[in-house]
Amino acid sequence: MIIVLKPGATKEQSDALIKVIRARGLQIDVSKGASKTVLGLVGNTSVLDMEQLQGYECVDQVIRVDVPYKRASRAFHPQDSVISVGKGVSVGGKKLAVIAGPCSIETPEQIEGVAKSVAAAGAAMLRGGAFKPRTSPYSFQGLKDKGLDMLCAAGKKANLPVVTEIMSADKLPLFLSDDVDVIQIGARNMQNFDLLKAVGKTNKTVLLKRGLSATIEEWLMSAEYIMAEGNHNVILCERGIRTFETYTRNTLDLSAVLAVKRQSHLPIIVDPSHATGKRWMVADLARAAVAAGADGLMIEVHNDPDNAWCDGAQSITPAMFAELMDSLRQLAPIVGREI
Amino acid sequence: MIIVLKPGATKEQSDALIKVIRARGLQIDVSKGASKTVLGLVGNTSVLDMEQLQGYECVDQVIRVDVPYKRASRAFHPQDSVISVGKGVSVGGKKLAVIAGPCSIETPEQIEGVAKSVAAAGAAMLRGGAFKPRTSPYSFQGLKDKGLDMLCAAGKKANLPVVTEIMSADKLPLFLSDDVDVIQIGARNMQNFDLLKAVGKTNKTVLLKRGLSATIEEWLMSAEYIMAEGNHNVILCERGIRTFETYTRNTLDLSAVLAVKRQSHLPIIVDPSHATGKRWMVADLARAAVAAGADGLMIEVHNDPDNAWCDGAQSITPAMFAELMDSLRQLAPIVGREI
Amino acid sequence: MIIVLKPGATKEQSDALIKVIRARGLQIDVSKGASKTVLGLVGNTSVLDMEQLQGYECVDQVIRVDVPYKRASRAFHPQDSVISVGKGVSVGGKKLAVIAGPCSIETPEQIEGVAKSVAAAGAAMLRGGAFKPRTSPYSFQGLKDKGLDMLCAAGKKANLPVVTEIMSADKLPLFLSDDVDVIQIGARNMQNFDLLKAVGKTNKTVLLKRGLSATIEEWLMSAEYIMAEGNHNVILCERGIRTFETYTRNTLDLSAVLAVKRQSHLPIIVDPSHATGKRWMVADLARAAVAAGADGLMIEVHNDPDNAWCDGAQSITPAMFAELMDSLRQLAPIVGREI
Amino acid sequence: MIIVLKPGATKEQSDALIKVIRARGLQIDVSKGASKTVLGLVGNTSVLDMEQLQGYECVDQVIRVDVPYKRASRAFHPQDSVISVGKGVSVGGKKLAVIAGPCSIETPEQIEGVAKSVAAAGAAMLRGGAFKPRTSPYSFQGLKDKGLDMLCAAGKKANLPVVTEIMSADKLPLFLSDDVDVIQIGARNMQNFDLLKAVGKTNKTVLLKRGLSATIEEWLMSAEYIMAEGNHNVILCERGIRTFETYTRNTLDLSAVLAVKRQSHLPIIVDPSHATGKRWMVADLARAAVAAGADGLMIEVHNDPDNAWCDGAQSITPAMFAELMDSLRQLAPIVGREI
Repeated sequence: MIIVLKPGATKEQSDALIKVIRARGLQIDVSKGASKTVLGLVGNTSVLDMEQLQGYECVDQVIRVDVPYKRASRAFHPQDSVISVGKGVSVGGKKLAVIAGPCSIETPEQIEGVAKSVAAAGAAMLRGGAFKPRTSPYSFQGLKDKGLDMLCAAGKKANLPVVTEIMSADKLPLFLSDDVDVIQIGARNMQNFDLLKAVGKTNKTVLLKRGLSATIEEWLMSAEYIMAEGNHNVILCERGIRTFETYTRNTLDLSAVLAVKRQSHLPIIVDPSHATGKRWMVADLARAAVAAGADGLMIEVHNDPDNAWCDGAQSITPAMFAELMDSLRQLAPIVGREI
Repeated sequence: MIIVLKPGATKEQSDALIKVIRARGLQIDVSKGASKTVLGLVGNTSVLDMEQLQGYECVDQVIRVDVPYKRASRAFHPQDSVISVGKGVSVGGKKLAVIAGPCSIETPEQIEGVAKSVAAAGAAMLRGGAFKPRTSPYSFQGLKDKGLDMLCAAGKKANLPVVTEIMSADKLPLFLSDDVDVIQIGARNMQNFDLLKAVGKTNKTVLLKRGLSATIEEWLMSAEYIMAEGNHNVILCERGIRTFETYTRNTLDLSAVLAVKRQSHLPIIVDPSHATGKRWMVADLARAAVAAGADGLMIEVHNDPDNAWCDGAQSITPAMFAELMDSLRQLAPIVGREI
Repeated sequence: MIIVLKPGATKEQSDALIKVIRARGLQIDVSKGASKTVLGLVGNTSVLDMEQLQGYECVDQVIRVDVPYKRASRAFHPQDSVISVGKGVSVGGKKLAVIAGPCSIETPEQIEGVAKSVAAAGAAMLRGGAFKPRTSPYSFQGLKDKGLDMLCAAGKKANLPVVTEIMSADKLPLFLSDDVDVIQIGARNMQNFDLLKAVGKTNKTVLLKRGLSATIEEWLMSAEYIMAEGNHNVILCERGIRTFETYTRNTLDLSAVLAVKRQSHLPIIVDPSHATGKRWMVADLARAAVAAGADGLMIEVHNDPDNAWCDGAQSITPAMFAELMDSLRQLAPIVGREI
Repeated sequence: MIIVLKPGATKEQSDALIKVIRARGLQIDVSKGASKTVLGLVGNTSVLDMEQLQGYECVDQVIRVDVPYKRASRAFHPQDSVISVGKGVSVGGKKLAVIAGPCSIETPEQIEGVAKSVAAAGAAMLRGGAFKPRTSPYSFQGLKDKGLDMLCAAGKKANLPVVTEIMSADKLPLFLSDDVDVIQIGARNMQNFDLLKAVGKTNKTVLLKRGLSATIEEWLMSAEYIMAEGNHNVILCERGIRTFETYTRNTLDLSAVLAVKRQSHLPIIVDPSHATGKRWMVADLARAAVAAGADGLMIEVHNDPDNAWCDGAQSITPAMFAELMDSLRQLAPIVGREI
């Protein structure tokens, strides 16, 4: 960590600050420039609170040289993590993991039908929302526990592990059933820290979506929240960020895949459906994500998008999904993967 | 609501869509342009799900003409709402409400000392964090229920209503104590819909901060979530949005004050401390907020910012706060307010 | 075009507005909703100025149903445009066009060396900056006309068409030389309308980069500026947009490739070097761009990145470029392209 | 300047880098941390190119401790600059400068009528566009030199200095007339470096608007471009930045006023008309800007906004302007200013 002092910092001020830092067991290298003095802190800087240091009147800037996360950091865990998700499936290895399914679970027939088709096309997991975070309180909010039961039944029938979103820690017991394989934390809850801690205390695999306006560092800090509680089974999911451009629902940030893979050992998949909000963009951006190096995909598939209860505009049909999988099968080997 | 059909929409497709809409009791005015057909929907369009309509293959755009919120909308409640918060204080009327206090509660002496000073300077309410949402799991997370007790005691002594943040619905019973006057929902939880519903079922006043990347419409929809459950005591708080500019922690959006006041009857206050992250900007932007028409302010005040346990860099001292209040006393009458 | 009137619009106000619109030869379909009246305008709405209509006191919203560009629009030109750039190279057809070269031209040896290597690896064009737009007036500003001469000479020797940036219309004569094949308009000049008009009056192919914060519509409107002057030889280049994320220099928006190809017939290429600012990201995102459907790439290649006069951090070496080309050769056929 | 080396940097690499830096006459303080080595550069770091240093393979981060501008920096010029603009008016002192006038000049009667009204209300300068940067090539592009003549005549009659926008250096001779007092560089041209250099070679006062997505540092670097050519008469103008929020045309960033005043000695004014695009927001945000500490305002005023040739939606009437000026007269003394 580096602390730049203000040009007018007095000796009393800087001495007081240096004393506080030394008291935490750190060494300080002082470099006096023409106008500013720079303190280089050597030692375990994780005992210091960067924001608190910025509060000192004599401090101009506090600059972190090391990343603020540890368990999520590749520095302390150079090998890629491969997360096993049940039913023989894992994420983060050579084999790409493609998660597919409808935005929301509607009926047993719907979810079983979709499960069957996506399994046939080669999907590795089944997704489906039972608890739905909706911008409007008047929109369909999901079938809740009944939906969850339908999803688990469909997953069993199709022999696919299931992924589904949790919105609140008090519903956690429902998600701890053996039938739920992966718990999803949605973009809007990426910094719902109490929920992160709650799932961190379980041993369920967590799929952590990037928040709409979360930096990569904040996202990895949210993963760290889960890992700090003991649960290291975390999969990240890039799903588009909010920018000024409104043509697409969000802006898919594929450079985040590369950034995450350099900074962290955790696997990362990409959700082109939510990123774009447009069905006709999904397959092309799915291919782009795999080409960029993603460990998998999360794709919304619906048997009848025109009549989907939510997000129909971004859902592709089972036939379109099968076609996409065919092209991914050709593409994967070029980037050293298989499907 | 207006639906624009794609140039190539077939008669079968548009007839199917029109049938669905008419079945919901709506009338349709059809306007055939050179290249595109436009459907104007007349009636209670709130029964329709805009996203679902966008899923139809034949649909190019769905454009809302009316706002998607009702209880929060000024259209249905033309007069400004004045929210009473206890101990004789209310927000939204002629009198400006200035909330002041430290980022986090540290000791009884600290919170009582700050309470006494800000009360003397004319603050209307006392703020202080007991449960702290922190980006890092390794940062100080607040004194929790002990901190809450200290805050309530300090509020009583200084005769100031208290405002404090809730992070999770399971802690709600603590916040329902008579000693807590206003429950704050932080920026990161603005779309934690389960938490919104939970506080919506109480009759406590809720201070709803704008999310880092929330549009004004999304923010009012979150207020609608609370109001839809029966609790109409909602105060909004603009606290800066995330933009490309990094000189300030966030970018304070004062035009949002005007937008909210036009779209909604709910009161809106401004938090210049979190918006900027810089102590030396707080007073000037507080004055700007009042000049723009805000109903109040939320200011971080700490007796010893250099040693604050969090957010010291943006906290002002009690002396700076008193000076700010003096200038606001002169400024308020110019915009038809008092303090 | 659709005009939504304010709830309180008087008959006099709306009659005055309707009169003005009819005077321009347009028909109006009126749809009276519960709270708002909607005017559907039928006919050639391009004679109307949307912003001017928004100025009317009685107008709530003006919504465009058709795009505001014509020559750049796919609606009026359904086939993909294939732009010929000289020396047998064209952009927009089945064959991908990869442009490569250094950020700035430094010496004849440097540019000729790079030209030779990238030609050998299969590049279709040579890039190099002679006039450099730099944030600081104290940074190297390019070798100007001397640099241009070196570039043209290197292009000739390697038999590669050359692309180079123009910063000001008064330098246009230099760029009209037969030796310059494509004139680049940089991101910062995307809305330098006088420069757009100037190159629009020539018959040189123009490579138009997307502005840092330009919407897709604004970008296509800038292409329209060039085309409206008679020059239809426009190639678009996505190079990252400015967002809140600072890990990368900009955020590469690959969904823009798809959006542009749907809205326009113009070819679009992708520049992963400027988008990321990081050498180690370039190859992966180049592959992603091709997988997404881009018509080509623009890659910064430097023989000695450590000592590059600018943008060394994002330049790849000739060896890395050759390796990238090899993988693109495998990838292209999967998305129906060749290289 | 601080350079952080990568964990794996070899001694050869760092020695090579250190040699290059020492050769430029700088001293280096080396601080070896647990995982990374930090080089503190002491001396005149402006001789180094930050981007070039980032290109070195062994470099992890380059962090600037000092700002990259000099002539625009308050560090080298602690007193506020007061820029004289002719006809007895100056900007940057105690007296606020309010610039008013229509978006575009339409007829002699229009501009003279507006000039007369705003002069009577206390405006310090007259604005009006003769050369108009428009998103669409099909929109009205301004009356050009004829418009300029009308503006100058109206300014003379009303005894107001005039401000008008230049779009291209080749039109500079027109703007060098004694009748033009201030040359405006619009947001879209903020990084049109050739235009900046051209006006920098004159002695005309330049009003430099902030680019739509320009950071404060980039904006001050553009001021530096003008000043580096010898022209120190620069006034900055905040006019809203592009964010995800679309309720307003742009997002007015009043914290930029404070940031600029801390970083630079140059005066800064605020344009609430372009920032919001909404007439009914202008007066409130104008008051907010003055309360925040702006040195002046730029306001669009039109005698007949319903029929304005451009930007009618954001223009206020002369009567609204007079009312605004009355309230500013009361507000100014509270923040130590007069009008």
